[in-house]
Formats: sequence, structure tokens, C-alpha cells
Amino acid sequence: SSAPAPIKATLFPGDGIGPEIAVSVKQVFQAAEVPIEWEEHYVGDQIDPRTQSFLTWESLESVRRNRVGLKGPMATPVGKGHRSLNLTLRKELNLYANVRPCYSLPGYKTRYDNVDLVTIRENTEGEYSGLEHQVVRGVVESLKIITRQASLRVAEYAFHFAKTHGRERVSAIHKANIMQKTDGLFLKCCREVAEKYPEITYEEVVIDNCCMMLVKNPALFDVLVMPNLYGDIISDLCAGLVGGLGLTASCNIGEAGIALAEAVHGSAPDIAGKNLANPTALLLSAVTMLRHLELYDKAERIQDAILNTIAEGKYRTADLGGSSSTTDFTKAICGHL
Amino acid sequence: SSAPAPIKATLFPGDGIGPEIAVSVKQVFQAAEVPIEWEEHYVGDQIDPRTQSFLTWESLESVRRNRVGLKGPMATPVGKGHRSLNLTLRKELNLYANVRPCYSLPGYKTRYDNVDLVTIRENTEGEYSGLEHQVVRGVVESLKIITRQASLRVAEYAFHFAKTHGRERVSAIHKANIMQKTDGLFLKCCREVAEKYPEITYEEVVIDNCCMMLVKNPALFDVLVMPNLYGDIISDLCAGLVGGLGLTASCNIGEAGIALAEAVHGSAPDIAGKNLANPTALLLSAVTMLRHLELYDKAERIQDAILNTIAEGKYRTADLGGSSSTTDFTKAICGHL
Ligand SMILES: CC(C)[C@H](C(=O)O)[C@@H](O)C(=O)O
Ligand SMILES: CC(C)[C@H](C(=O)O)[C@@H](O)C(=O)O
Repeated sequence: SSAPAPIKATLFPGDGIGPEIAVSVKQVFQAAEVPIEWEEHYVGDQIDPRTQSFLTWESLESVRRNRVGLKGPMATPVGKGHRSLNLTLRKELNLYANVRPCYSLPGYKTRYDNVDLVTIRENTEGEYSGLEHQVVRGVVESLKIITRQASLRVAEYAFHFAKTHGRERVSAIHKANIMQKTDGLFLKCCREVAEKYPEITYEEVVIDNCCMMLVKNPALFDVLVMPNLYGDIISDLCAGLVGGLGLTASCNIGEAGIALAEAVHGSAPDIAGKNLANPTALLLSAVTMLRHLELYDKAERIQDAILNTIAEGKYRTADLGGSSSTTDFTKAICGHL
Repeated sequence: SSAPAPIKATLFPGDGIGPEIAVSVKQVFQAAEVPIEWEEHYVGDQIDPRTQSFLTWESLESVRRNRVGLKGPMATPVGKGHRSLNLTLRKELNLYANVRPCYSLPGYKTRYDNVDLVTIRENTEGEYSGLEHQVVRGVVESLKIITRQASLRVAEYAFHFAKTHGRERVSAIHKANIMQKTDGLFLKCCREVAEKYPEITYEEVVIDNCCMMLVKNPALFDVLVMPNLYGDIISDLCAGLVGGLGLTASCNIGEAGIALAEAVHGSAPDIAGKNLANPTALLLSAVTMLRHLELYDKAERIQDAILNTIAEGKYRTADLGGSSSTTDFTKAICGHL
């Protein structure tokens, strides 16, 4: 009997340390016999007029066709006349929810040992509308746009996620005491969706208070859903609680079932090509992609191997206080599979 | 020879636990022989048409006349047709900078023991413009307004504060990679002011990264200056690092030399009138008011007495894990003077 055809997935290795950590993912996937065939795409060296950015039209088409992808760090080239790579991906692929699981890694000590939460960020509008102008000299304004459609969509995603992942509570984060119309609409949509999920506890927390609670006792939170900028801020804060962006996964969910997982840390040009980079964030992001593909066994096995390798402590990259190379750390993970 | 006339200061005891903790301040000030005469004002029980809020015109006039004041927690009554008490004070008194010193309290253990920073928040515009509207059904927008005038003013305050308080670094917090015009103008103003203070190190930090750095290593920061909403978020986050809003001071600086110090925690109606409230935040805020009046000796003496009482640990209120009443804690502070 012939093996089932492999699943095609788009891979953006990205810049800087991106290609090295992408190799790490490919090796771990191969060792775990994940039935995935990568379609690799690199950021172009000139602006593609069809995307108004350095991302090629072909690479976006690849994600649209495959519906799943993995993305390393991409440094947006400086200059005018083109759009940020991350923002282009979010807009062009309509990546409406950014999901970031965040939990304390066993054996890796930080000030917190009880973190286990998921931030779900609206990823297309809000403070990221791009609409800004000068009113008169010395007076500028930016528009924050909140729509019922995008708010309902991300709220639906958050509650569905909570339900299907055995989570008990969804907290909507807002500043509706000040932005009564925009954040007020966001909350109204969350409440509407909450009605349909009576088994999930729903609460609303003002963003300033949320940040204070997170640093005092992150165990108070489970799933958090919020407008774009608050998600940007809180997801990074949460990553900080467990060690930083080098250790946390991220996955963007788009319409039509697209999932684009990504390492959200920088491209670290200073250590690029030196076999020093920590591939954990990209690996854990790749694991979220596997879950999206419902390859749960593979996902669990790989995640366990990553966490066990870090917990064991024998092979750690420099950012985690060790002296392992990227390749040795990757080999250790493969050994734990 | 007759004693110099006392300095008049406005006191808003506020709601809930406000009156009790205000008594604590009065007692400590009396014990320390602070030459201040309080003019007490309470929030009215009907809307004053001249302020469009429950704050009376007379109370605002009192602050304008005295130039210094202290404010306990105020719960804005629910309902329409009036403005938030806090926002009314900020707008009417042009309280352009909110200054919050934040440091680890000796002997009071949190996850952090190396915090010593000051957040300086633009307090009048930005995301708090109050300008919002529905564009079409299901689409709403809020305007964030940044002006050169307000940005320069708060930047000037921050650098002057840094210089006069022996601080070495000012970090401007922003999201100018996304809000290029608004946060871009804010940064431009900070840079202009930074030029005039070559002895102060100036840096710019993106807000998401700032929050991550704060939870990983708050010792990286010294003075932080930022637009309104980021200040709201980051000042609460920082308070969380050292124990919460019950332990941190806040002072609002207005044009014409006004300083209105305030406890930024809530009015805690559940424990109001029970002699259980912790007056520390209001006391430490009152200390910032004394510094503003250049009563440095009194300020130091009172601050030391508060910190020593907490460090000693014998008299602590319930929120700090003790079982002292407000009055016993206050007596202990007076004993340490
Ligand atoms: C790089 C930047 C535009 C981006 C954002 O602000 O969304 C980043 O912080 C992120 O969280 O992915
Ligand atoms: C109560 C609220 C309006 C206020 C604010 O958002 O500024 C509070 O959070 C603060 O920081 O003083």
C-alpha cells in the first residue's frame, strides 16, 4: 500500500537567524516523520508591485493554496514605498487572529512558575488601521477602527479555542471606560459570543489593571482576547514572564482556514550564520501548525521532545544560559523524540 | 517671633476608604509638624453645571488658588451627562504630566527587588481625546491626537525631572513603527528636548518590547516618558512589580506650577469605614507634594517613617499580609518620625 500524499506547507525561513532555525524545524519534522512537504519562499530583493512589498505574489499564493505555513523572522527593509512584511501578510491573507500560547517551561527558571495562558489578538484593524494625518502643523491624529465583523470573528475564535482546548475562562481586555465607542463595541461583540458559550466563564478586564494582575499573579488568567494593540503589548508582556520571545509560539489564523505560524522574535543579525540561534520559538510555532492540521500525535511528541530537552538542561543555547550550538540542541531534541 | 503662615493645600478625601486614609495623612503631617493647612473639598452629590461633573467649581478654584492638592480615590458616579472625575480634574487643571515613582519597598517581598524607576505620562491628549464616532453601523473609530505642544511640554518635564533628581536615562516609549505620525511626532519632540540635556542618556523603546523588558529586568529602566495610554498601562504594570497601587505614589503636574498628588488605587467600598485600609499610597503621594513644595526635610522624614514601618513588619495592614488597623499603622508611622 502506498503512503498518503504528504501535506504541502509554505515555509518562509526569513532573514538573519531564520534559515538556521528553519533547518532545525525541518530536521525535527523529518526525525518525527511528519508527513509535510515544504514549499520554501524567500523575501524578494525588490518590491513586488502586486503586493506593494518585498513579499512576492508567488509566496502569498503558496500560503493561500496550502492553507498552512511557517514563518521565521523577517526584517522589513528600511525605505519608502513598500509595506511592512508582517503587516502585508496579515492584510493580504486576512490573518484575523494571532494566537500565542504562553506557559512556564519546566526546568527553565524565571520569576514565575505558574503561567499557562493564551493571548488571542485581533490582528487586522484597531490601532493598526494605517489611517493617520496631520490636522494642522503640530497636531496629528491616528484613527483606531473597530468593526463589529472583525470583533465578532476574533471573539468567536477565542471562545471556540477555549472550548476545544479545555480552557475555562475568556477575559476580554479593553479600555472601554475611556474609548467607550471602539472598545465598547469590541466588548459588546465579546458579550454576544459569550452568550453562546455558557460553559466558559466570561469576564472583562481593563488593560491597565490586566497588566498589573499579570505581573502579580498570571495564574489568574486563562484565555485573553483583545483588540490589536493591546494584544501586541500583552502578548509580549506574557512572553517576558516565561523567558521571552525566543521561547514562545505564535500562530496567525486567517479566513478560509489559513494558519500561518511564526516565530515573533527578531532576526538577530549579530549571531546570524554562527550556529548559535535558539530554534525553540519556531519549533513551538511549528507545533501549533501541526495541531491546526489535527496531527495531534506528532504535535505532542515534538513538543514533549523540545520541553524535555530544555528541562534536562544539558543542551541549551546561549540565550538560555547554555553553550550548545543550534545543531547540537536540535540533535538533542531529535534524540528525545 | 511669630511662625510663618502655613501653606494652604486642597484636600479631596474622596470616596470609600478615602476619608480614613486622608485622616492618616493629616495625623502623620501633624506629627511631623508639616506647616500645611488643609482646605477640604468633597465631591458633590449633583452635577455642577460649571464643571459638567460632580466636582464643584469651588473645589477646582481651591486647587487653582493653592497650587497644591492631595486627592484620595474618587468613584465616578454611574450615569450620563457628566464627565469622569479624574478626567475633569486633568482637563480643567491642565494636569499635563502624571509622575509615578515606583521602587521596591525594603522588606516587602515581591518577585522583584531591584525596581527604581519613574513613569512620566502625558496626561491630557492621545487616546484620551474623547473624540469617537460611528462611521457606519458596525464601524466605529476613536481619534488619538498628539500635539507638538503637549509632547514638548511632557518631554521637558521628564528631562528636567531626570536632571533634578539625579537620574541618568530617559526612555521614550512608543509604537512609532505602526503609528508613524502620532507617535512619530511624540518621539520627534522627545529628541528635540533630549538635545538640550546631553548629560542624560536618551533612548527609544517600542511599547511591546518595553513591557517584556520590564517584567524580565526592570532595572534596565530609569525615567520613562510616554503618551497617555501607554503611561496608563505601563505605570500600572510597574506598580504591580512592587506590590500594587496600594503602595505607589502619583502626582499630577499642571501649568502654572500646580501639583495634585493622588492615590490611584480604587475606593474599596467593601472595606470602607472599617479601619482596615492601607494609607501608604496616599501618604507617599503626599510626600511627592511636599517635595514639590520644596519641603525636602519633611518629605524625607515622612517617607523614611513609612518605609521603616513597612520594613519592620510589625504593623502592616491586611493587604500587606498583616492585621493592623489603619489607625495602628498610622500610629506606628508617627512613632518612626
Ligand atoms: C514588528 C511589529 C510591526 C509587530 C506588531 O506590532 O504587530 C510585532 O511587534 C508583532 O507583535 O508581531
Ligand atoms: C480611572 C481611569 C479613567 C484612569 C485612567 O485611565 O487614566 C486610571 O486608570 C488612572 O490611571 O488614573
